[in-house]
Amino acid sequence: MQDIFDFNRLLRRGVSEVIVEEELVARLKRGEKLRLKEGFDPSSSDIHLGHMVGLRKLRQFQELGHEVVLIVGDWTAQIGDPTGQSVTRPVLSHEQVKVNAETYMQQFFKIVDRSRTEVRWQSEWFGKFSLTDVIKLTGRFTIAQFLARDDFSKRFAAGKPITLTEFIYPLLQAYDSVQVQASVEFGGNDQKFNLLVGRELQGMVGQQPQQILMTPLLIGTDGSHKMSKSLGNYIGVTETPEQIFGKVMSIPDNLLMDYFTLVTDVTDAELSEFSHEIETRANPMVLKKRLAREIIIQLYDKAAASAAEDNFVRIVQNKEIPDEIPHFRIAPGVLSIPNVMLDAGLVKSKSEAMRLIRQGGVEIDGKKLTEPNYAVAYGAVLKAGKRRYVKLIE
Amino acid sequence: MQDIFDFNRLLRRGVSEVIVEEELVARLKRGEKLRLKEGFDPSSSDIHLGHMVGLRKLRQFQELGHEVVLIVGDWTAQIGDPTGQSVTRPVLSHEQVKVNAETYMQQFFKIVDRSRTEVRWQSEWFGKFSLTDVIKLTGRFTIAQFLARDDFSKRFAAGKPITLTEFIYPLLQAYDSVQVQASVEFGGNDQKFNLLVGRELQGMVGQQPQQILMTPLLIGTDGSHKMSKSLGNYIGVTETPEQIFGKVMSIPDNLLMDYFTLVTDVTDAELSEFSHEIETRANPMVLKKRLAREIIIQLYDKAAASAAEDNFVRIVQNKEIPDEIPHFRIAPGVLSIPNVMLDAGLVKSKSEAMRLIRQGGVEIDGKKLTEPNYAVAYGAVLKAGKRRYVKLIE
Repeated sequence: MQDIFDFNRLLRRGVSEVIVEEELVARLKRGEKLRLKEGFDPSSSDIHLGHMVGLRKLRQFQELGHEVVLIVGDWTAQIGDPTGQSVTRPVLSHEQVKVNAETYMQQFFKIVDRSRTEVRWQSEWFGKFSLTDVIKLTGRFTIAQFLARDDFSKRFAAGKPITLTEFIYPLLQAYDSVQVQASVEFGGNDQKFNLLVGRELQGMVGQQPQQILMTPLLIGTDGSHKMSKSLGNYIGVTETPEQIFGKVMSIPDNLLMDYFTLVTDVTDAELSEFSHEIETRANPMVLKKRLAREIIIQLYDKAAASAAEDNFVRIVQNKEIPDEIPHFRIAPGVLSIPNVMLDAGLVKSKSEAMRLIRQGGVEIDGKKLTEPNYAVAYGAVLKAGKRRYVKLIE
Repeated sequence: MQDIFDFNRLLRRGVSEVIVEEELVARLKRGEKLRLKEGFDPSSSDIHLGHMVGLRKLRQFQELGHEVVLIVGDWTAQIGDPTGQSVTRPVLSHEQVKVNAETYMQQFFKIVDRSRTEVRWQSEWFGKFSLTDVIKLTGRFTIAQFLARDDFSKRFAAGKPITLTEFIYPLLQAYDSVQVQASVEFGGNDQKFNLLVGRELQGMVGQQPQQILMTPLLIGTDGSHKMSKSLGNYIGVTETPEQIFGKVMSIPDNLLMDYFTLVTDVTDAELSEFSHEIETRANPMVLKKRLAREIIIQLYDKAAASAAEDNFVRIVQNKEIPDEIPHFRIAPGVLSIPNVMLDAGLVKSKSEAMRLIRQGGVEIDGKKLTEPNYAVAYGAVLKAGKRRYVKLIE
C-alpha cells in the first residue's frame, strides 16, 4: 500500500472520519481515478484557514491523479431562503452569483489544482427539475430519518419550527452527487448527515455509493469557537501576509499543534518535536513564527513570508513605526484626540479612545498622551494600542 | 336568512363541520357566487353511496346558484406512488386517466349539475411546476405542523415509515385551491387536515381563505366500517336498481336513520316519524323499502325503483325464480355439485359449497340437495343461498 500512497498522510492526518474507509482504500489500491466532490454556497465567497483543511486534502488527492468536481450552488443561492427566516441566505441575482463564484475560485485555486478540477453549476440540473422529479426524490426518504439528524431533533424537541424545505435541501445536495457521479464527497464533521444522504441516494439509483471524507473543524484565533467569518475569529486566505502573520502570532499556544497538523505540511517527525517543545515550556514565539511562515508560503511565497516576519519583528517586537502608515488630515490648534482617533478609524468609539488614553496606550511621536486635548504638530505620528498608527497631516 | 337559503338543510343536515361557519354564512347572505371545490383521484373511478353524501351537498349549493369546480387529480395519478409502498396508487397512463375520469364523471353528474360545473385538470398547473415553486411552497409549512396530523403522529410514534412525499401531497392539494380560487372546499371528516392546509395557503398568498365543509362518513352495509370499495361493504351508484334494492334491504336496522338523513331528501318531519317507528319496534322492512326506493329514484327514476321493489318481493320475499338467470353448461350424468357451483361462480370455494349443502341452502328445481353428487337433468335450476341462481344447460 505504501507504494501507492502514504496512508497516514492521506487518510489519517487532517481527517476526522472516512465512510467507509476499507472501501476507499480498496478503490485507491485498484488505481481507480476518483471524482472528489466539493460543493460551495456562493452566497459567501470568503475562504479562511478553516476551509483550508479540506482544500489541502483535495490537493493531496489531486497529487495522486484524482479529479476534483467543484459544485457551485448557484441554483440554491438564487432561491435564497423563501421563508425569510434566515438572514444568512439572501436571494442572489445571477450576476452576483457569478461574481461571488469568481471570487471564491480565485481563492480556491490558491490551494487546489485548477488543471485537475471540473467546475459544475447546480442549475445545469435543477433548472429543469420537475415536480415529478421532486416526488420521486422525496419518496425515497422518510421523515423519521431526517428528524434523527442531530440539529433537527434538537429543534423539533425544543418546539422550534423546521420548514419542509429544510428537509429538501439535503436531498438536493445528495442529487448533486448522483449528477456528477461523485466517488468521494468531502465535508466537515458537521455535514455528516447530508453526506450520508448522498451516499444512500447513489446506491438507490444504482450508482456506486460515494465514500465520505470528513475533515475536522479548525478552532478560530479566539481559541474557543470553530473558525468562522461571522465570529470574527478567522484568518482569511486573501488577507495580506502581514495581517496573516499578525493573526497567527495572536492565537493561543494550545492551538499550535492543531494548526501545524491541519494546515501545514511539516513532517510527522517535526510535529513530535514541536509537541515536545511546547510540553517543556519552551518559548512558543519561535514555533508561532514558523507556523505563520508555513501558512504564508502556501498562500503567497517564501519572500512574502520573510517580509511579513521582518515587518512583525520591527513593529510589534521592536515597536518601530512601520514604513507605510495611513495619513489623516487635521485642523490646526488644540484638538480632541478621541475625536481624531475615531475619525481616523483607530477606535470604534470615543469611549474606547478615552479608555486607551487612561491606560497609557496612546502616544504622539513616541510620548504617552495623558489628557484628551492636545495641540498636534503637522507630521506627528499618533499611535493607538500596539499596532495602530496614523500620520497627522495638514 | 331563511329568505335566502334553508340554513338547516344546507349547513346542518349531512354536514359534520364547517370551518368557519360564520364566514360561510356571511358569504351566502352577501349573495356571493361561491366556487365549490371537489377533487377526485382518477386511480379509482367508482362512486358509491358514501360519496353521495358530499355530492348531494354540492347539488344543494348549486341549486342556490353556486358553481362546482371539479378537480381531476390526473397529475398525481400519473405519478402513482413512487415509493412502491402503496398498492392503492398504481401509475396510470394518460389514456387510463382519461378513461377513468370519463367513467367517474358519468357517475358524478348523476347527482351534480353538469351545467354548473367547471372541470379542471391538475396537470394544467403541475405539469409546469418548477423546483423553485416546490421550495416556495414547502418553505411555508413546518414539519411539526404535519406531524400533528392524527394519522402521521400515530405512524411516527409507532415507528412506521412516512415518506417526505406524503408531506408534499397535502401541499399540492392546497395549491389546487389557490389555482382555482376555491371559496369552499368539500371533503370528508378524515380530510380535515388537508382541507385546512388549503385554507392556510390561500391566506398566505393573499387570497380569501376558503371555507371548509365536511360531510360525515357513511357506514357501509356491514354496519361497522366506513363504506369503501375495498371493504366490499358498498352500494355503487352504477349498480342495477335490483342490486341496490337488495343491498339496501340487507343493511342493519340501526343504520336506517343515517341513510335517510344523509342520502335522501325525505323531510325532517318524516325523519322524526321514521325515528319514532323504529323506536317503537315497527317492522323496519317497510322503511327499508322506502329508503331503497328513495335512493334508486335519485340514481334512476321512479319506474326503476318500482320494478326493483317488485323483483325483490317476488324473488326474496316470495322466493320465486327471477325472470332472467345465467346459464351454465354441464356434462351429462352424475355431477359433483360443489364443482359445478364453483365453476358457475355461485361460491368462492368447494368447502363453501359443501357447507351450504350441509346447511340445506342448495336446491335443484326447488328440492333441497342432501348429498354432493347428483345426476342433473338439462334445464334444471340450481339455487345457492337466498338469491344465487343458475340454469344448467346442455
